[in-house]
Amino acid sequence: MTKRHLALDDMIVALGEVLRANGCSHDVAQALATNCASAERDGSKSHGLFRMAGYVSTLRSGWVDGHARPVVEDAAPGFVRVDAQNGFTLPAHDAARALVEEKARQNGIAALAIRNSHHLGALYLDVEPYAEKGLIALSVINSMAVVVHPGSTKPVYGTNPIAFATPRAEAGPLLFDFATSAMAHGDVQVAAQQGRQLLPGTGVDAEGQPTQDPNAILSGGALLPFGGHKGMALAMMVEILCAALVGGQFSYEVDWSEHPGAHTPRTGQTLIVIDPTAGAGSLAPFAARVEALIQEVLSGGPVRLPSEERYPAREIAAKEGIAVDAAQWDAILALKAPAEAVQA
Amino acid sequence: MTKRHLALDDMIVALGEVLRANGCSHDVAQALATNCASAERDGSKSHGLFRMAGYVSTLRSGWVDGHARPVVEDAAPGFVRVDAQNGFTLPAHDAARALVEEKARQNGIAALAIRNSHHLGALYLDVEPYAEKGLIALSVINSMAVVVHPGSTKPVYGTNPIAFATPRAEAGPLLFDFATSAMAHGDVQVAAQQGRQLLPGTGVDAEGQPTQDPNAILSGGALLPFGGHKGMALAMMVEILCAALVGGQFSYEVDWSEHPGAHTPRTGQTLIVIDPTAGAGSLAPFAARVEALIQEVLSGGPVRLPSEERYPAREIAAKEGIAVDAAQWDAILALKAPAEAVQA
Repeated sequence: MTKRHLALDDMIVALGEVLRANGCSHDVAQALATNCASAERDGSKSHGLFRMAGYVSTLRSGWVDGHARPVVEDAAPGFVRVDAQNGFTLPAHDAARALVEEKARQNGIAALAIRNSHHLGALYLDVEPYAEKGLIALSVINSMAVVVHPGSTKPVYGTNPIAFATPRAEAGPLLFDFATSAMAHGDVQVAAQQGRQLLPGTGVDAEGQPTQDPNAILSGGALLPFGGHKGMALAMMVEILCAALVGGQFSYEVDWSEHPGAHTPRTGQTLIVIDPTAGAGSLAPFAARVEALIQEVLSGGPVRLPSEERYPAREIAAKEGIAVDAAQWDAILALKAPAEAVQA
Repeated sequence: MTKRHLALDDMIVALGEVLRANGCSHDVAQALATNCASAERDGSKSHGLFRMAGYVSTLRSGWVDGHARPVVEDAAPGFVRVDAQNGFTLPAHDAARALVEEKARQNGIAALAIRNSHHLGALYLDVEPYAEKGLIALSVINSMAVVVHPGSTKPVYGTNPIAFATPRAEAGPLLFDFATSAMAHGDVQVAAQQGRQLLPGTGVDAEGQPTQDPNAILSGGALLPFGGHKGMALAMMVEILCAALVGGQFSYEVDWSEHPGAHTPRTGQTLIVIDPTAGAGSLAPFAARVEALIQEVLSGGPVRLPSEERYPAREIAAKEGIAVDAAQWDAILALKAPAEAVQA
């Protein structure tokens, strides 16, 4: 497997060109390319270059508007609403970012509710920048119905991830980002290809019976939430915060049947930003206290902090560039030609 | 087993008398008694009358101040801070409730951060009243260190529950309330008494090795978070939001060794309240949308909604009174005599 090494900025430029060639405006292409290249750099392969084919396929299907101009509404002193106008979530978030940050600093807490929007990227990249600026951020997003409520045979919930980021004193932000489903949908497909059985509690078959067979989940079955009734409750909360609250669609309402090739659910996203100086009086003690917790955790044994693997990955990428498979990279660049068949 | 049936209000009056006899002011006693009796009425036995011995024992130990007067600080347009002054969390919450609600309605979202506070009650009762008034509420609370970070031998996290409540159109609030530990600590003790093995993933022994033996967890071992690394991330988030953010203590910092008999951790609580009219434009569409999600879930099979069992329990209690074991009730009333030894 031939490898190529690309600087982050060069990768963003190249991906942006591919996206623009497929119907994205400059700003939209820039937002998607940055998210995609950053995830690839961080070792989050499932949300990195792997996503490019899905973006292009969705754009070509006419399901998403790559030129959409988000409409930002200052709904209340602590609340920003954005209608993404059937465009991608990332540029809609960018359009509201400064206002949300200002409101959080002024009010102590602020919410951002995005609707009518498409998200296919890594969610941790949405919350991390706030923590880098001294704020706490929590975000949830719904997707398409692939998860059942335990006891049901009807998929209702998306994989509905939750991401959280907070500043700490002695290092970059502490953050986590996880699906409220027992497993990512893509990982079930990989297990099926490899003929692997799944752990108990991962999913159900078409009759709603528990199964460890990935094929049973993929053919009429569904995933379960992680952690039983607790993950179920969280999956439900994410739907409520991302659809009912923002005036958008539930995962089960997404209907892209008229748009073959579409991969991005048109749903919603909610973000809550907290200024820790409102709680603890100043950022310094807050960040020092988070650090104290982390040091206490680390003193207990060989533990892993959530998402910490991105830091060494970033160091390597800064020194050597981001290593990519040459064939995969060429296939992505080939997507610039609009007539080209989309690579799966 | 002889049963007695008590009206909710009579139970609150009687429990309040017991608490006042043990060093609570009228307001504090009223807040604790209401929470305790309401949980008992709802069938949430682990947070009902069962808690009374712990309250009394803690009051007698001198660890908590039953006469504390919470100090409410209007920290920002969307942020309320309360120093409970080493008193119980419930009266501190009561002291700030109207202000938090007003801020949520004015700003779209508001936060309440309580520190230096003791909570031994059911958390869902803290969020439900907001949903009954048309608001969304999310609350987290840390406790005492009985949960390890996976890979560690040192308990760091509390059972750190998360509770959420939202209005819905056709019924009372939808809510959930769960510990981020794999199991409640009390349930491990029950399993040990009954000689039952636990499910895999519940806890570790003193060497940090996974165990299904409740005795190994209780003698030097610890609980694990629910749902592996995902529950761990949530447990960590709860610590940060309840201690670092509010300027209070982490679960691992609680030291009641000078106060034998103390049962209530002195930690913190954070509550986030959202006005759904800021997001969706008006409460009617929001509540109708939540209802649509619930109906979609219910149409998929014989499913259980989180915490729904409280509704039939309330109906029965309203008709017949709350059924209590006569011996248990008499033992609680006996706690009014200050010289009386505390019943375990």
